[in-house]
This record gives sequence, C-alpha cells and structure tokens, in this order.
Amino acid sequence: MIKKILVANRGEVAVRIVRACAEMGIKSVAIYTDADRHALHVKKADESYNVGPDPVGGYLNAHRIVNVAVAAGCNALHPGYGFLSENPQLAEVCWRRDIVFIGPSPKAIREMGDKTLAREAMIKAGVPVVPGSEGNLKNVAEAVKLAKKVGYPVMLKATSGGGGRGIRRCNSEEELRRAYERVVSEATKAFGSAHVFLEKAIVNPRHIEVQVLGDKHGNVIHLFERDCSIQRRHQKLVEVAPSPQLTEDQRQTVCALAVRAAKTVNYENAGTVEFLFDQEGNFYFMEMNTRLQVEHTITEQITGVDIVQEQIRIAEGQPLSYRQEDIQRRGYAIQFRINAEDPKNDFLPSYGRITRYYAPGGPGVRTDAAIYTGYDFPPHYDSMCAKLTVWALTWEKVLARGRRALLDTGLHGVKTTKPYHLEILKTPEFREGRFDTGFIEQHPELVNYSIRRPPADLAAALAAAIAAHHGL
Amino acid sequence: MIKKILVANRGEVAVRIVRACAEMGIKSVAIYTDADRHALHVKKADESYNVGPDPVGGYLNAHRIVNVAVAAGCNALHPGYGFLSENPQLAEVCWRRDIVFIGPSPKAIREMGDKTLAREAMIKAGVPVVPGSEGNLKNVAEAVKLAKKVGYPVMLKATSGGGGRGIRRCNSEEELRRAYERVVSEATKAFGSAHVFLEKAIVNPRHIEVQVLGDKHGNVIHLFERDCSIQRRHQKLVEVAPSPQLTEDQRQTVCALAVRAAKTVNYENAGTVEFLFDQEGNFYFMEMNTRLQVEHTITEQITGVDIVQEQIRIAEGQPLSYRQEDIQRRGYAIQFRINAEDPKNDFLPSYGRITRYYAPGGPGVRTDAAIYTGYDFPPHYDSMCAKLTVWALTWEKVLARGRRALLDTGLHGVKTTKPYHLEILKTPEFREGRFDTGFIEQHPELVNYSIRRPPADLAAALAAAIAAHHGL
Repeated sequence: MIKKILVANRGEVAVRIVRACAEMGIKSVAIYTDADRHALHVKKADESYNVGPDPVGGYLNAHRIVNVAVAAGCNALHPGYGFLSENPQLAEVCWRRDIVFIGPSPKAIREMGDKTLAREAMIKAGVPVVPGSEGNLKNVAEAVKLAKKVGYPVMLKATSGGGGRGIRRCNSEEELRRAYERVVSEATKAFGSAHVFLEKAIVNPRHIEVQVLGDKHGNVIHLFERDCSIQRRHQKLVEVAPSPQLTEDQRQTVCALAVRAAKTVNYENAGTVEFLFDQEGNFYFMEMNTRLQVEHTITEQITGVDIVQEQIRIAEGQPLSYRQEDIQRRGYAIQFRINAEDPKNDFLPSYGRITRYYAPGGPGVRTDAAIYTGYDFPPHYDSMCAKLTVWALTWEKVLARGRRALLDTGLHGVKTTKPYHLEILKTPEFREGRFDTGFIEQHPELVNYSIRRPPADLAAALAAAIAAHHGL
Repeated sequence: MIKKILVANRGEVAVRIVRACAEMGIKSVAIYTDADRHALHVKKADESYNVGPDPVGGYLNAHRIVNVAVAAGCNALHPGYGFLSENPQLAEVCWRRDIVFIGPSPKAIREMGDKTLAREAMIKAGVPVVPGSEGNLKNVAEAVKLAKKVGYPVMLKATSGGGGRGIRRCNSEEELRRAYERVVSEATKAFGSAHVFLEKAIVNPRHIEVQVLGDKHGNVIHLFERDCSIQRRHQKLVEVAPSPQLTEDQRQTVCALAVRAAKTVNYENAGTVEFLFDQEGNFYFMEMNTRLQVEHTITEQITGVDIVQEQIRIAEGQPLSYRQEDIQRRGYAIQFRINAEDPKNDFLPSYGRITRYYAPGGPGVRTDAAIYTGYDFPPHYDSMCAKLTVWALTWEKVLARGRRALLDTGLHGVKTTKPYHLEILKTPEFREGRFDTGFIEQHPELVNYSIRRPPADLAAALAAAIAAHHGL
C-alpha cells in the first residue's frame, strides 16, 4: 500500500498530484528550490523539503530527490511531467531504493523514449508508422538518399527528443543538408544523444493522441482520444476531447491501435500514444509518452476517470478500476493553456508578480493552476500560468463556455495568452472543428486583438489592494 | 428571441445567470443597491443600474425593477431565487410591460405558492400528500381536533410560508395550542397572510426533491432527484444528487410523481417538487418551488444539463432541448453551502472583509461564489459566501473529493461553515449515505472542531497584501 508520495515536480502538476493524494488519504511530500519557496505546491503538500538553490537543477537531481523521499519516509514517487518524468534513471534509482515509481518500468520508458526503438516495436506489432529511416541515420548522405525515396518534405528528428525540441522540417535537399548538423548539435545539447532519424513529413496533419491505462495484470484500456492539433512550434496550445474531426469509426480505429501499441510493449501505468492523422484519413504512430500529460484534464472531464488516482492504484499493483466497457464518454472538453507570454511580442515570456488572480467558476469549468494573487511568477520555469478546462454536452456549447470562462478569468500583472485564445475561438475553422497543425501558422492575424481593461476591473483591483493592506 | 436580460437578484445566483447569458450571447443587466456597488454580479454583468439606498427593498420593488428593465432595453427578466422569485406580482408586472418573465406563469406561482391550493391539486392528481387539514384552519379548536385524528406529532405551517419560516412542530395538544397564535402572527408578519394549516409530522423523514423542466408545448421531464435531508432549522446545508438512500425503483417512483405533479398544473420552466420520504419508503408531496433552486448545481453536475440556459430557452418558447431518454445521470455530486456564520456561536452571521479568497481547483470541483479577495461581505443579505460543488463517479470518491476541495478552499476574514462541513463528512451516517432531516439536531458535537491556521497560510496572506499594495 502506498502511504506517502514524494512529488518530484513543481507547479500545477505538483498541485494536481497532491490533490489526488489528499483524496486517497495518502500523505504528500513536495520538493522545492529556493526560487519556489512561495510556490503553491509547497503550501498544498503535507510536507515539503528544500532541494537547493539551483532553480532547475534541483528538480533534475534524481539521486538527491530519491534521498529526500527515503528520508521523509515516502514509499512512492510521482514524477509528474517534464523534468525527470521520462528519464529512466529516476525510475531505476527508485527501484533500487525500494520506492515505488508511479509510472511505467524503466524498460518501457527507455524503449518508448528512443524513437527508433519505438518505431521498430510498432512496425512489428502492425501499428502503422510514417515512412522513413529504419533506425538512426549514419550521416547526412544517408538522410539525403532516404529523403529522395520517401519524398519531400521530410522531418528530421532527434531520437531522444520530445516536447517539440530537436525537430526540423526540410522541404528540399538543400534544407535537409543545412538542418542535419544543427539537429545533431541540438540533440546532443538538449538530450545528451546525437542520434537523429528521418520521416516523411505528413503535410498539415491532425495530432490525435489516445490516453491509455495499463495495469500489472496485463489489462490495457483506452480513455478515448484528444485532438492536440492547435500547436505553435510543436507546443500544444489548445486541446480538445474527443476530436470533433473523427468519425465514430475512425475513433474506434485509433483507440484500438493505441491499445495494441501499449500491449505490444507490456505497458503499465498511464501513457499516451500519439498519432498523425492525415487528410486521407490515415493514422501514423508518432510516439508514446510514458507519463501523465498536461492535457490529461480534458480526458478526465469527458470520462469522469481520475487519471492520477488510477496511476497510483496501478503502481500499488491493483487491477484497473474499470473495464473498457465501463468507460463512457460524455460531451466535449477543451483545455486552454494560459501561458505568461506576450502573443503580440512573438510569445515572449512575461514573468513577474501576479497582482490579481480570480479563478472562473460556474458550470463546466475546471482550473488547474499554481498561481495566486501576490505570487511572483518565476522566470526559471516554463511559462504556463493556469490550465482552463471547460466541458459541455455539445461542441457548440463548449465553444460558448470556453469564451465565457476565459472572460471570467482574472489574471493580471503578467501578459498572458488569454486574449489569443479568445481569438482562436472566433475562427470559423476552430468553431467548425476543422483544424490541423498548420492552424496557428496560417493565422498570424490572431495576435491583432486589442485589450480593453474594464474600469470595474481596475476598481476591484484597487479595492482588493487597499483591503488586503488594511485588513491584515 | 431573448436579447437582453435583467437579472433581478444579487450575489452568486445573479453571477450564475450572467454566466448563462454570456454563453448564449445574450446581454445581461444587473441591478444593485448602494450596499452592493462593489458586488461581483455588478462587475460581471454587461451593464448595471443602481436601484437605490435600501439594501433589501431595492431588490423587492417589482415596479421599479421592471422600469429599469424597460429603460435598459431588456426584453426578459430572470428572478433568480429568493427576493421576488416566487412573488406572482413580479411575473404579472413583466407580462404587462412586455418583458418575458423567465419562470412559470403567475397562475402557477400563485397556485403552488399557496400550500393548501397546491395540496388540493396534488390530491386531485393522485400524488400522495401528508395526512392533514383540507384547506386553511379556521381556529385553534379545529387544529386540535384534526391533530387528534392524524396523531401527534403534527406540523403547523403558514400557508404562504417557505424557506423554513412560519413552520412549527407540535408534539402534544399543549404545544399546538401554544404554537397556534405564534405561527399565525409570524405568518402575518413575514408573508402578509394569516392562513395556516396542519399536517401529520413525518418523524425524521428524508427530504427528496425532483428537478423538473416543462416547456410551453406541454413537455415535462425530470432531471432526477436531490437529497436535501441535511438541514439546520429547515435550512439546507448540504445537498446530494442522486440520493444515496433510494433504490432504483424508489428513484423511478418519485421522479414519475414529480412529472405528474408538474403536468397537473401545466407547469412550464424549471421547478422543483419536494417530497418527504419516510422510513417505510413512502413519498409525500411537500411543496413545489416555482423557481431555480440554490442546489440546482448538483443536478447540473450529474446530468450535464445547464438548467439556467434551459430556463431561458423555455421562456423564449423553444421546446425542451432534451427528451426524457436523453437525460443520463452519471456519478454523484455534493454541494456544500459555505456560509459566513460561526457554527460555534449558534451559527451567528459573521460579516466583514474577505481578506483572502482562494477558489479550489482540480478535477470534479465547481465553485459558485460572489466573493473575492478584498470584498466587504455585507450584513444585509443572507450569509451564503460560496457554494462548493464536487462530483465524482462513485459515492466513496465524492466524499473524498468533498473533503479535499473544502480543505483546498481558502476563505479568510469571516468565520464560515467550512470546518463544520468537514465534520459532517466524518460522520458514519453521512459516509454511509444514511441520514434524515434530524441529522444536524442529533449531532450537536459537530461544532467541536478546532481550527489550526497553518503558518504558510498566514505568510501567503501577508505576501498577497504586500504584493497587492505595492504592485498596483
């Protein structure tokens, strides 16, 4: 039985895990760097430990973090997403120290983290992949030869890459030759591996991913798909579940492919199988993420399943709480990533003090945030401020709810992507549920909004300031 | 088509209606008294108008409110709950001034508002009622005679009463004789009518109510039931949907009775049929509330239906969006009324400045509040600060989520019922889903909690105060 969990992460995902622990009667332990000593995850956890002055390094030192877990009496560790979540070393250190790692086995992390190994496994299992290199490329000459065979454009990718980094589209031989050394160098710097591979580029595909859950008893189920086609430079901005652009047959097909992919690698715990979906209706395996995803919230909203609690139960060795036929989806959910960035200034991060944060409420609205009024949003980490998830019975209603909930959100002191999301919601493509990964690039005009700060808003902020000053 | 709605209310219900308007593309107009000029409903509405210095009277002057609606170019009015919502006069003034009243006809309001008329209608329709007087009592002698016939204890009730006022339980003839004049006098003062009636008291019944929707085309559906047995002095504190104490057969029975009751009076718009459910499994019609209820949120959470939007569509003359078979319930929802009251001091209202409000987040959590950090909670109105609604797939999970979400809620500056709700959640009766309207009275020990304010909390509040002061 898991009694106490170290949360090896920060920000909203750390808060999310602490909340799951609280609901399961499990103690939670937070870690924090000096820069994070006022962070919300520290306040919400049952205990918290400082892991030093290095703002990023503190969350990347697997040995130290597991030492904290042992010292604090934890018998499990949840990695969240980002940081060490897909680093097999953390999982291995946990296994060696008798700490249950809440995630898949180091073997599965390694196999799926290596894009060429993952690709080979999928080919063997009969899951379609994008035509491209078998294994890593030896040199640029091999890349050029292969590109000629599959046809331009092609994608050059770091084998250990992820999160949109170490990836480049090449439209011609010339571009490929220029990109090759750069991607190798990026890959070496960012992921510590010079391996790269090549795939035919699927032009303006849709990004469809399927949430899967597997237990230690060989059961694998899916929780339907998410459509994450709205991306800027391979970073997801808005996610939707289910995809409004799949037929019911296509949905069944891609969900079955995902379950097959997970079973092939004896996958256990929560994972996501990502597919490209081309304009002809073909699905191609892209990669498998062996961790919780930022956008898991929309799947929780349509299925009612608490994915983090399920992760913990699976890690305990319990069988899945649900059979496939128990999983019913209802309605539509959209997640907006409200980032502290200035869309008008090429999405430049905008850090500083959150002078006012008012979370939206009412029906069909969920917030996952790690900010509060008076919080100094730190410059060291990613720029996500808050995730706003909306749900409604129909696509039309969820669009209206999204707009309302964004307007209902008060977040001042830093520039955010909130007004940009409102613009996305106005486009006919998004409203009609017809969008691909080229959407953001095709809509440079989305940054041409104007912000009117209503006078009442300012009055409220001033009133709150005065109140807070005198009231304490 | 409804284009612009005057919201004839204040506080969280006004905010709730403004949100529904925003999602439907309808303009909203708020009204406010001097005491409410910083209230959230004023900030959230598209326009707002001052209705004078009288804090309560401003919301009770039907003619003036409808004048504002006409002047502001509204073509509809939503009464919310409380204030004039069950006063047929407001509905009538609206009809005369060509303003669509979002609610039932004045006739239905009048018929269901008069408890003896309502009772007669139900008897005619074959809906079971509690044995008691036919029509109003003439005098105390008649009351005593009738009480002997049905057996003590009996309830003496003001015919125009509601909200737990003008109601008295009498265990003996002596008590009945003493109570009679008091209830008559209370009824005259509070409701302007001296009429009273008598019913056999159902000892420690469960309070089960059914949400119904009827349109102008004769369609009536139910949205399942709510269990509102957790009451203190006839005021609901915690509501649950569906009731964990009904069998599926009993659920079908009570929902069918409610639909029959609504059809009998040609009911249109949203309404609630309230029943007493005795220990032998019998349902007795209690009353019908001809308005939106505070606890409509839990029904929205289990069915996914937006009841306020449905009210507006019905008032426009549109047929119901759903047939009965479209209404699927999923999981369990609980609403906690977080009131600004001190449970340790006989629930004395605790008004003042909200020095910090942090709304809870994460999965399955909904808040409906009209407060914010720095808001001066006014003494003139009811003491409800925030409604916290939690949802999960199972009863066990929703209990855990309720506890977590309550602990996750930061509300400082006034005393609240939050710690009291945490105590309710600990009781075996509540956890096992076995509670009746005697629950609160049987548990005087629930006020024996101790509040530990974590030091981190204070630090955060101070940081926010300083930040807000310097940051603006």
